Amino acid sequence: MRKVSVGFLGCGNIGCGVWKLLNEFKADILHRSDVEFDVKRILVRDVKKKRDQVVPEELLTTDPAQVTDDPEIEMVLEFMGGETPATQYMLRALEMGKTVVTANKMALALNWHILQAAAEKHGSGLYYEAAVCGAIPIIRTTLDSLMSNRIEEMMGIVNGTTNYILTRMSQEGSDYAEVLSDAQRLGLAEPDPTSDVEGFDAAYKLSILSSLAFHARVPFDVIYRQGITQVSAADIAFGKELGYTLKLLAIAKRSGDVIDARVHPTFIPDDHPLASVNGSFNAIFLHGHACDDMMLFGRGAGSAPTASAVVADMLYAVSRDTPRHPTFRNTNELAEGLTVTDDWHCSFYVRLTASDRPGVLARITACLGDEGISIRNLMQRDAVDGHAQIVLITHDAGECAIRKALAAIASDDVQVESMIRVER
Amino acid sequence: MRKVSVGFLGCGNIGCGVWKLLNEFKADILHRSDVEFDVKRILVRDVKKKRDQVVPEELLTTDPAQVTDDPEIEMVLEFMGGETPATQYMLRALEMGKTVVTANKMALALNWHILQAAAEKHGSGLYYEAAVCGAIPIIRTTLDSLMSNRIEEMMGIVNGTTNYILTRMSQEGSDYAEVLSDAQRLGLAEPDPTSDVEGFDAAYKLSILSSLAFHARVPFDVIYRQGITQVSAADIAFGKELGYTLKLLAIAKRSGDVIDARVHPTFIPDDHPLASVNGSFNAIFLHGHACDDMMLFGRGAGSAPTASAVVADMLYAVSRDTPRHPTFRNTNELAEGLTVTDDWHCSFYVRLTASDRPGVLARITACLGDEGISIRNLMQRDAVDGHAQIVLITHDAGECAIRKALAAIASDDVQVESMIRVER
Repeated sequence: MRKVSVGFLGCGNIGCGVWKLLNEFKADILHRSDVEFDVKRILVRDVKKKRDQVVPEELLTTDPAQVTDDPEIEMVLEFMGGETPATQYMLRALEMGKTVVTANKMALALNWHILQAAAEKHGSGLYYEAAVCGAIPIIRTTLDSLMSNRIEEMMGIVNGTTNYILTRMSQEGSDYAEVLSDAQRLGLAEPDPTSDVEGFDAAYKLSILSSLAFHARVPFDVIYRQGITQVSAADIAFGKELGYTLKLLAIAKRSGDVIDARVHPTFIPDDHPLASVNGSFNAIFLHGHACDDMMLFGRGAGSAPTASAVVADMLYAVSRDTPRHPTFRNTNELAEGLTVTDDWHCSFYVRLTASDRPGVLARITACLGDEGISIRNLMQRDAVDGHAQIVLITHDAGECAIRKALAAIASDDVQVESMIRVER
Repeated sequence: MRKVSVGFLGCGNIGCGVWKLLNEFKADILHRSDVEFDVKRILVRDVKKKRDQVVPEELLTTDPAQVTDDPEIEMVLEFMGGETPATQYMLRALEMGKTVVTANKMALALNWHILQAAAEKHGSGLYYEAAVCGAIPIIRTTLDSLMSNRIEEMMGIVNGTTNYILTRMSQEGSDYAEVLSDAQRLGLAEPDPTSDVEGFDAAYKLSILSSLAFHARVPFDVIYRQGITQVSAADIAFGKELGYTLKLLAIAKRSGDVIDARVHPTFIPDDHPLASVNGSFNAIFLHGHACDDMMLFGRGAGSAPTASAVVADMLYAVSRDTPRHPTFRNTNELAEGLTVTDDWHCSFYVRLTASDRPGVLARITACLGDEGISIRNLMQRDAVDGHAQIVLITHDAGECAIRKALAAIASDDVQVESMIRVER
């Protein structure tokens, strides 16, 4: 039996979940892996705060060095969230030769290169399954099971809050603001929901996932990002009529040396495996040159599912004699030789309000035609107040071309209400 | 750079896929893992046979010892299929201290205890991701990512041939025999389809998966097995009307020390994540006490997807200093303290033909009531030739109870046409 002393950085929702899992599953962990994790010290902001789990007060400290610098502590688990000071504390632990297990997508996405350099220099382990999509083993799968593949595409529902909001908007025909305030009331969205609804959270995760998938660092700041705050019930309803479901997708594609990486509301056909991923569930769909299509589905957040990933990382770490790191050159720049394009190709859903006058539709189709864009579906609804609703879906086209076409279409006669990308 | 000499046992569809992947992905493998796999010898039955891939004739041999006994060969890949002589050859390779990577579910399910004992005794690696569900990383996930979980339930679509047949029967309303012969014509079903359509293939896979999930060997012969040969278009159509999809599921559940493990046609609600897994795709849905619901979806067979798993295992093996084996006591007996029940609980779909006489329906419901079974849905169709079709779905009930009730119901007046288990 091997005894491993562990320190926590933070003890909120996730920390309490890990504390609980380590305790209730102690006997199984010992039986399966011949290891006993002994939590020696827990960094908290407030020693007196009431917690979900009864954590012995003598373990609590407000001094980070008691965790990162204690020579007896072999493994440091980080659950603080946010970039600072979590990054500095992890860095210190890595420099002290400790294995770090983190659930912090933001600190990892922004400072991965620094953390990995320290881990490599000091021979320390750095594990982060819990940082992306909770219990879903997408990190392990990409690192261990898809090493035999050139991953050409990843599309993920990686944020539970926005998926919950879009699912309810779709099922109930409700408006964004209404469902958001309901989600906040239920504790499913933060009081300040910006990170989720504006796509920051998804973009951090996509930076990590696409870097692993492409074996080349894809920094956060090259990722195109559009949230769900402008999504309207009308677009969801029109999409439904046409056989599409709206999801906030994190998308990364690679074709030769050109990649695109983007987070935005996306229509996908109703029969796509991602279309039925509802509520707060997450899923990552990917395509590899050998494995073909694959999808991993599960709980992307929550105390117990995140703890599942943290403890799995702990057990994986102790099962290895030497730590396993990704092998690509991890700097904060896009890998040499790669280009990020903002002129990706997909279909586009467009909704227009047009004056009900002769020639308007002809002008719209001409503007699209001028950019080489052809139309797959078109619906025109009866005019109200002299204005008609026109909804169309294009065949494959470039992002730049559709933007140009829409700029040309917009006029006194035609208002561009929305443009939503369509993937299949 | 590390050079690893490799030997193949067999070079059919999968072997050619691995040959191709190792060659076309050579540079990436070297770049990612700093390893070069050098195929030194390939055991075949017929040196002159025409193959998909151009394999240099000087590598081919008909003598297994040239693979298993060559001291230069570090890693032996087994693609022969079948129990014998694949088991003996793998055993020999393990005894010679070689790492064995196999895609052979039958040999593994039946002789795992012998193979693992040899691997442990000689410090050899034994890897088998490709033996279960092709490219889907369910072995790796169970061993590495779900170690932190008590897996309480696994339900899988683990056989592509039967899923293809059931998908087409459902989409086209066709009969089993018709779709089977079509699938055989297309090469999607074997000339002798017994192993697939009678559920043997699924039961081998379930034996491996449930053993890993429960950390206790679940031998093949304790698995209840019923194939799809008796499935009728009528049942699929009635199920559809009631909101259910028919799948051949491999199911393993654990409650305390009691497990059930079974392969049979199963109705699941249309909105279950497994219900939309169509065609030759595979998927495993599972529930862990910490991770909650999870599903892995992908290609369960085929040359390239299986090669994806084989080469992933090869890379995983070389990344480890010591081989990773499951830690449960692997004998060919059910683990001590565990019981297998054949009285599992679920809902049941029942189709009856009944004489259109007063009192018949009352007698049917009384027989069910006598066994404590209550009805969730009931449909009665207009009588034809004095016979009515009755379709019902029960609330949760025991397998033994429903069997008793159906035995009591069967009479001159009532014929039991079918009984299909319903999971949710």
